[in-house]
Amino acid sequence: MRLSDIAQFLGGELEGEGDLEIKGVNTLEESQPGDITFLANPKYKAKLHTTRASAAIVNREVLTDRLALVRVDNPYLAFARIIPLFSKIEPPPPGIHPSFITGEEVQIGQNCSILPYVVVGNRVKIGDRTVLYSGVYIGNDVTIGNDVVIYPHVTIMHGVQIGNRVIIHSGAVIGSDGFGFVPQAETYQKIPQVGTVLIEDDVEIGANVTIDRATLGKTHIQRGVKIDNLVQIAHNVVIGENSIIVAQVGISGSTQVGRNVTLAGQVGLVGHIKIGDYVKIGAQSGVTKSIPSHAVVSGSPAVDHLLWKKSQVSLLKLPELIQRVRDLERRVEELERGKS
Amino acid sequence: MRLSDIAQFLGGELEGEGDLEIKGVNTLEESQPGDITFLANPKYKAKLHTTRASAAIVNREVLTDRLALVRVDNPYLAFARIIPLFSKIEPPPPGIHPSFITGEEVQIGQNCSILPYVVVGNRVKIGDRTVLYSGVYIGNDVTIGNDVVIYPHVTIMHGVQIGNRVIIHSGAVIGSDGFGFVPQAETYQKIPQVGTVLIEDDVEIGANVTIDRATLGKTHIQRGVKIDNLVQIAHNVVIGENSIIVAQVGISGSTQVGRNVTLAGQVGLVGHIKIGDYVKIGAQSGVTKSIPSHAVVSGSPAVDHLLWKKSQVSLLKLPELIQRVRDLERRVEELERGKS
Amino acid sequence: MRLSDIAQFLGGELEGEGDLEIKGVNTLEESQPGDITFLANPKYKAKLHTTRASAAIVNREVLTDRLALVRVDNPYLAFARIIPLFSKIEPPPPGIHPSFITGEEVQIGQNCSILPYVVVGNRVKIGDRTVLYSGVYIGNDVTIGNDVVIYPHVTIMHGVQIGNRVIIHSGAVIGSDGFGFVPQAETYQKIPQVGTVLIEDDVEIGANVTIDRATLGKTHIQRGVKIDNLVQIAHNVVIGENSIIVAQVGISGSTQVGRNVTLAGQVGLVGHIKIGDYVKIGAQSGVTKSIPSHAVVSGSPAVDHLLWKKSQVSLLKLPELIQRVRDLERRVEELERGKS
Repeated sequence: MRLSDIAQFLGGELEGEGDLEIKGVNTLEESQPGDITFLANPKYKAKLHTTRASAAIVNREVLTDRLALVRVDNPYLAFARIIPLFSKIEPPPPGIHPSFITGEEVQIGQNCSILPYVVVGNRVKIGDRTVLYSGVYIGNDVTIGNDVVIYPHVTIMHGVQIGNRVIIHSGAVIGSDGFGFVPQAETYQKIPQVGTVLIEDDVEIGANVTIDRATLGKTHIQRGVKIDNLVQIAHNVVIGENSIIVAQVGISGSTQVGRNVTLAGQVGLVGHIKIGDYVKIGAQSGVTKSIPSHAVVSGSPAVDHLLWKKSQVSLLKLPELIQRVRDLERRVEELERGKS
Repeated sequence: MRLSDIAQFLGGELEGEGDLEIKGVNTLEESQPGDITFLANPKYKAKLHTTRASAAIVNREVLTDRLALVRVDNPYLAFARIIPLFSKIEPPPPGIHPSFITGEEVQIGQNCSILPYVVVGNRVKIGDRTVLYSGVYIGNDVTIGNDVVIYPHVTIMHGVQIGNRVIIHSGAVIGSDGFGFVPQAETYQKIPQVGTVLIEDDVEIGANVTIDRATLGKTHIQRGVKIDNLVQIAHNVVIGENSIIVAQVGISGSTQVGRNVTLAGQVGLVGHIKIGDYVKIGAQSGVTKSIPSHAVVSGSPAVDHLLWKKSQVSLLKLPELIQRVRDLERRVEELERGKS
Repeated sequence: MRLSDIAQFLGGELEGEGDLEIKGVNTLEESQPGDITFLANPKYKAKLHTTRASAAIVNREVLTDRLALVRVDNPYLAFARIIPLFSKIEPPPPGIHPSFITGEEVQIGQNCSILPYVVVGNRVKIGDRTVLYSGVYIGNDVTIGNDVVIYPHVTIMHGVQIGNRVIIHSGAVIGSDGFGFVPQAETYQKIPQVGTVLIEDDVEIGANVTIDRATLGKTHIQRGVKIDNLVQIAHNVVIGENSIIVAQVGISGSTQVGRNVTLAGQVGLVGHIKIGDYVKIGAQSGVTKSIPSHAVVSGSPAVDHLLWKKSQVSLLKLPELIQRVRDLERRVEELERGKS
C-alpha cells in the first residue's frame, strides 16, 4: 500500500513521498523501516526523532522532516482506522455449521456465521451478519441484533435482549441468576430471579464477565458501554451510556451508574447507590455511598480523589508524627513543671 | 389469579377484596395496577402510600386501607414464594439429547434433563431430576445428587462429589488443580494435586467461580453455602454451613471459614487461617490472621470494624493534624525560649 | 509399595524397617497408620511426635525413632515426587474423538488425546502427547507444543503461540481482544487488536484466567510463569520467567513484570509501568509506579512493605493521637496565657 493511498483513506494531508510503500503499522518504539506510526500524545513528540518508521500520522502542528507525514485532526483515531488495512485476520466461515442445534420458531438473519456446536433454545431471534463462535449457548426467547459477534463458550440465558453491533468475548455469562436470598433461621431461601438483562447497541463485554439477570425487571447495560474482562455486574444494576468499566470491577445489586462514567480496575460498588454522570472512580476504590455527577473519587471507602491522595501521603508520615507528638508531650510537661 | 388464592397459598390473612385479579408481582416502586407488592423492611412503609400496586404483602402490624393486604409473618419470604406463580419460565426439555457422550459404568437417575453436547467420564453417578445444560463437562468418578441444576459450560473435574439440590451457574470450574509448587533454584516444581472437592446439599455456586481440588484430602463446601460470581476458593479450603460468599472474594489455600459467616464482595483471605462462626467481614477487606467467632472486621489488614471505621474518618483529618503539630512545635519552642 | 522402594525412588537414606508396606501419602496431621508423611518446615517438627503416619520423609538433621524415616535433601520436593505413586488418576483416553472438527492444513503430533467436541481452525499445529479436553476451541494459525494439557472449555483465539509442557485450566481465555478505545466526542471507537499472545514453555495458567492479545506485537508470558485462577492480563503485558501470579491479580496494558517476581492475591498493577526482577508485592496492593528489582512493597498505592506495615499500625492509633494533639493545644494555650 502506498502512503498516498493511506492519506486518501484517512482524508489526511500528505507531506513527503506519496509513492512510499507502507508494509505495516506500529508504535513509535517498535516500528521498522517500511512501517507507518503515529503520534497521539504530544508529550512523546521527541520519539519522532528516533523512530525507525518511514512515515507518521500526526496532527496539524507537529514539525519534522525526518520522515513522511500524514496530517489529520485526530491521529489516534486515524491509527485505529488504518490497523485493519494491514492485518490479515480471516473472517469466520459463513453459513451455519451442521452441528447447530436449534429450538422451535427460531429466526436467523442473513449472512450469519454459526460455528460448530452452537445451541439455541426456542423462539430465539438473531439479526443479520451476526457471528456465533463455537460452543455458544443461547437460551429460550433471546433476541440478538445485527452485526453482533459472540465469541466461544459464551452463555446467554433465557429472555436476554441484545442490540446491534454488540461484541461479547469468550466465557462471558449473561443472565445468570441474581444473588438473592431470604434469611430463614440459620439458612437461606433462594429468591427466584425472574427478571432479565437488556444490552443495548454498541456495547462490548470482556472475557469471563458475569452479568446477572434482575430479580424482577431488568439489569440494563445502555448504549456504548465498554466492559473489560472478569467484571461482575449484579442483578438490577443500570450502567449508563458510554461508561467504561475496567477489569475486575464488581457492582452490587440495584446500583445505578450514570453515563460516561469511568470505573478503574478492581473497583467495588455496594448495592442500591447512584453514581452520577461523568464520575471517575480510581482503581481499587470501594464506593459505599452515592456520588454526584462529575466527581472524581478514590480510596476505600472512596472520598474526593485529591483528599484521598493527600491522606495517603500523610499516612506515610504518621509513625514519625506519633514520635513528634510524644516529644511535644514531654516538652510541654517540662514547661508546665517549670511554671509551677 | 385472584388475591384470595394468593392469600391461601401463603397461609396469610386477607384484608380487602378477595376477588381482585392479580397479574404480576413487583417492588413498591415499580408495581403497576394489577400487581401485588410487598413491604419487607418497615423503613420503607411510606412507600405503601405511593405505590401503584393493587395489593401488598405485609406483616401483622402495618396499617393502611389504600390497597388490599395479605398479612403474613415474613413478607420477604412470602414474596420469594409467590414469584414463581407469575413467571413463565419454560423448564428444560426432559430426557437425554442424542449428542450426549458418556463413559463406562455411568448411572443416571430418573427424569433427568441432559441438553446437547454434554460429556461425562467413566463411573459417573447422577441422581434423579438433575439437569445438565449444554456443554457441561463431567470427569471420571464424579457423583451428583438429586434435583441438581448445572448450567452451561460448567466443568466438574474427576472425583468431585456434589450433594442434592445444588445449583452451579455457567462457567464455574470445580476441581481444577490447586496452586502448589516447590521452589527449586529459580524455577518451580508442580505439586501433583490428587485430592478432591466435596460440595454438600443446598449449595449454590455462581457463574465463573473457581473451586480448586485439594492437594491431598478435600476442599469442602458445607451444606447451604451460597457463593456469588467470580469467587476463587483455593485447595483444601473449608467453608462452614450456611456461609455467604459475595462476588469476587478470594480464599487462599487451607483456610477454614466457619458457619453462617458473611464475606462481603472482593474480600481476600490469606492461607492457613481460621475464621470463626458468625463472623462478618466488610467488602474489600484483606484478612491476614485468624478471627474469633462473632467478630465483625474490616480493612486491609482487617481489624475490628468500628476501629477501622474510626481510623478511616481520622485519616482524612491527618493532613490538617500534621499542620497542627507543626504549629504546636513552633509555639512550644517559643515558650521554651521565653523560659530560658 | 514397600518403604525401601520409596527410599530408592527418591535416592534417600532409609532409617527403619524397609519392608514396611506404605499405602498412601498425607500431611503430618491427617496421616493414618500405613501412610508416609513429610516434614518440610522445621517449625512443625513437634508434629513428628504426634503424627499417626508409619514413616516420614525428613532432612538430614531431624532426630526421632518414633517412626521410620527416609532422609533426603529436600523433603518438600520429595513429597511432590511421590504423590503420583499413590494416586490412581486415569489418563485421558488416547486418540481423537470422532466429534473433532478441524480446519484446513492442521497438523497433529503423535499420541495426542483429543476429547469430544473440540474445534480447531485452519493451519493449527499441535505437538506430540498433547491433550485437548472437551469443548476446547482453538482459532486459526495457533501453534501448540509437546506435552501440553488444555482442560475443558478453554478458548485459544487465532494466532496464539504456546510452548511445551504448558498447562491451561478450564475456562481460561487466551487471545481475547485488548481493551483499547479512542474517545470520540462522548462515545468510544474500538481500536482493532491485531497482535497476539506468546506463552513459553512450562507455563501454568489457572481456571477462568483471561490473557488479552496485544494491540500490535504480543502479550508475552515467559518460561516457567505460574498463574493462579481468575487473573486478568491485559494487552501487551510482559511477564518475566518464573514469576508467580496469585489468584485474582489484574495487570493493566503494556506493563512489564520482571523475572522471579511474586504478585500476591488480588494485586492490581496500572498500565505502562515496569516491575523489576525478584520483586514481591503484598496481597491487594495497588501499584501505580515502576518498582526497582528486589523491592518488597505493599499497600494501595504500594510503598515499601515495612513502611506500609508501620503506617497501618500507626493508623489504628490515629483517633487517640488526634485527642492527644487537642490536649496539647489546650495545655500550650494555657502556658502561653500564663506567660503573658
